[in-house]
Amino acid sequence: MKAVKIGVLGLGTVGGGVVNVLKRNSKEISRRAGQEIIVASASARDLSRKRICDTTGIHLTTDSFEIINDPEIDIILELIGGTGLAKDLVLQAIENGKHIVTANKALIALHGNEIFAKASKKGVMVLFESAVAGGIPIIKAIREGLSGNQIQWLAGIINGTGNFILTEMRDKGRDFDDVLAEAQALGYAEADPTFDVEGIDAGHKLAILASIAFGIPLQFDKVFTEGITKITRADVEYAEQLGYRIKHLGIARKTDQGIELRVHPTLIPERRLIANVDGVMNAVLVQGDAVGPTLYYGAGAGAEPTASAVVADIVDVVRVLTSDPENRVPHLAFQADAIADIPVLSSEQIKTAYYLRLNAEDKPGVLAEVTSILANHNISIEALIQKEPIEGETTVPVIMLTQTTLEKEMNAAIIEIEALSTITGSISRIRVETLG
Amino acid sequence: MKAVKIGVLGLGTVGGGVVNVLKRNSKEISRRAGQEIIVASASARDLSRKRICDTTGIHLTTDSFEIINDPEIDIILELIGGTGLAKDLVLQAIENGKHIVTANKALIALHGNEIFAKASKKGVMVLFESAVAGGIPIIKAIREGLSGNQIQWLAGIINGTGNFILTEMRDKGRDFDDVLAEAQALGYAEADPTFDVEGIDAGHKLAILASIAFGIPLQFDKVFTEGITKITRADVEYAEQLGYRIKHLGIARKTDQGIELRVHPTLIPERRLIANVDGVMNAVLVQGDAVGPTLYYGAGAGAEPTASAVVADIVDVVRVLTSDPENRVPHLAFQADAIADIPVLSSEQIKTAYYLRLNAEDKPGVLAEVTSILANHNISIEALIQKEPIEGETTVPVIMLTQTTLEKEMNAAIIEIEALSTITGSISRIRVETLG
Repeated sequence: MKAVKIGVLGLGTVGGGVVNVLKRNSKEISRRAGQEIIVASASARDLSRKRICDTTGIHLTTDSFEIINDPEIDIILELIGGTGLAKDLVLQAIENGKHIVTANKALIALHGNEIFAKASKKGVMVLFESAVAGGIPIIKAIREGLSGNQIQWLAGIINGTGNFILTEMRDKGRDFDDVLAEAQALGYAEADPTFDVEGIDAGHKLAILASIAFGIPLQFDKVFTEGITKITRADVEYAEQLGYRIKHLGIARKTDQGIELRVHPTLIPERRLIANVDGVMNAVLVQGDAVGPTLYYGAGAGAEPTASAVVADIVDVVRVLTSDPENRVPHLAFQADAIADIPVLSSEQIKTAYYLRLNAEDKPGVLAEVTSILANHNISIEALIQKEPIEGETTVPVIMLTQTTLEKEMNAAIIEIEALSTITGSISRIRVETLG
Repeated sequence: MKAVKIGVLGLGTVGGGVVNVLKRNSKEISRRAGQEIIVASASARDLSRKRICDTTGIHLTTDSFEIINDPEIDIILELIGGTGLAKDLVLQAIENGKHIVTANKALIALHGNEIFAKASKKGVMVLFESAVAGGIPIIKAIREGLSGNQIQWLAGIINGTGNFILTEMRDKGRDFDDVLAEAQALGYAEADPTFDVEGIDAGHKLAILASIAFGIPLQFDKVFTEGITKITRADVEYAEQLGYRIKHLGIARKTDQGIELRVHPTLIPERRLIANVDGVMNAVLVQGDAVGPTLYYGAGAGAEPTASAVVADIVDVVRVLTSDPENRVPHLAFQADAIADIPVLSSEQIKTAYYLRLNAEDKPGVLAEVTSILANHNISIEALIQKEPIEGETTVPVIMLTQTTLEKEMNAAIIEIEALSTITGSISRIRVETLG
């Protein structure tokens, strides 16, 4: 049996996980790939650090360039992260004719167009299954499994930290800050949680999913992102009373006007399967015109689930290693010359329904003022709950669900409602999607 | 742009759906495949019959052999069904050097080993994504997306008719016969529903899934099948009271002793995502050693969802059309020479937990007799409910959940319990899986 030689850049959680999986499952993997897969070299910043994997037999170096310049190496795993050194290494490795497998969502979302163009020119493959939703083979599902469809929309829980926080808030009636602190202690959330809770990480992943779903360039800069930091325990409870769950979703939708790319907290009907994806788990719901709705569920992070996707990419490369580049699946699902620059809509052009929560003075006529402002903006109300006043308070919480409207109209309506003397504080609004 | 020519054998629901999808999405599909895909010829038994698709520009014939012998045709779609003519056509088409895409689960489950051996010899591809779980890309997920894993087990709702019946029984408190009659009227179930409700159809699909998951030959004859015809409304209700749902599952599990292949009604905890897959929808839960649990959900039947999977297979073939056969994904996920003949366990060797329902005389000591028989067979009881006697009845229903046991022990225990003079009628037993 021939052997394929791998060079691993970065021996942290993911790199260590990959080395472990390749070793533990080597027999099973060779039976599938038809060739032995050997980790020949690996780089790390500090070689003295304790590893989660056994590095016996692996040439170790602190110099990643040594690995990408080694003519013996067939496939480079870029598991360093970030968009600085990682980008330089990937571009140089492609230049050197190496195939690339990367778990780096930021690198693909921000520099993928350049990387894939160079890879196509050099006739090498760059695979990135592990960059989105960890171990779930969602890139493959969309790129290959649904290739007969016009993808109409997709919606994903693609950040495990955010989903863990929202799940805890609902299950245990806890506050956002409290759960975030626990998530940090458990190692689910970074010391700086901005990327997770503000939707940046999910935005990177959404840019990738949208590109392969619709055949458009990668364009993270056009993704609208809103975090979950303003979601309160009260919102979670009111949503529940209305039959909804709040999830932090990445949504990409193709409309006649253009493409919506948005990450935000979202009310979804509790009977939807994706509404019941809890804790750190991820799931992506994809709607194709032929297949209808399909859902893909699994672990979105962690050493072994991420390694599962990295190794699947390696096997994919090995299985077609000596094929001519014409006989390969295109990087972004669509042929490079068939990528279309369909306009991405601004947030004001997005159409969605809304959950609104406001504090109104508890006296006649207040609701009439609010509802007439909404009506003037052509916003219909689907449901309305006015709570009993809490003793000693002069205002009452009012919760509304609206029908689908243009975000621009909602923005204008909210400004007018907040200006009413009978309304206290600012209005909480959360978008609502039926996903049906 | 080059054009690939398709010959469609069978223009029924699936064939018509494929022609429609290829036409409607031709632009999108060509952007992905890099080549135009043209339906050049199609065969049908009766050319005068009204079709769900437009056949303008397609050469029609009643003679399928004319199509497989046409040197202009690159890919044959076998959508006739059955294992007689379909088998002859597929083998001859392979002999003629054609690539094959088929939706025929019985053909693959029963004759796949022979078909793939011949295809490998002739260097052609035979793809069958649509044979299992309709539009869900589950074959691709297991064969490629999870190739880094040792698959430990999988469990699927892979027959939509059966799931529709069980869902209606639960949601509306209806009886099996009543719902089956409706399913037949709605066209979900065949006039002869045996294949669906007795688990034969699910057994075919399970044989295919197990083969690609574990790298074993296709062996439908070793699948244990039990239908849903004996499930009563009472079982559905008691299961619910215990926190479970009843689903008709296909389960394949790799144990140290060998492989379990079984289709039967199963109690699963209601909080599991797969317990909430309702109506005609399908889902497959796959447990890999690295990735953990992953779930794939979507429509398991119907013209368009099935066409989605057929077209994905066509695009897969087109994308690697001129590659040498060494640079392709192996038919059964594992390289042909790496298929291992791991023993399949008999039903007596299966280990699972049980739900038992029996009618016992309402007097002291009866339960002690029953539980001591179970104890003698090393079967532990997890939960026990004894219902109040219905007025005028001298027996009471007793419901038990046991811990995991060897099926052989349970068979023996049931014979002994049924022989007790204090027990009336036969014992209902349903297997229980936690799937966690």
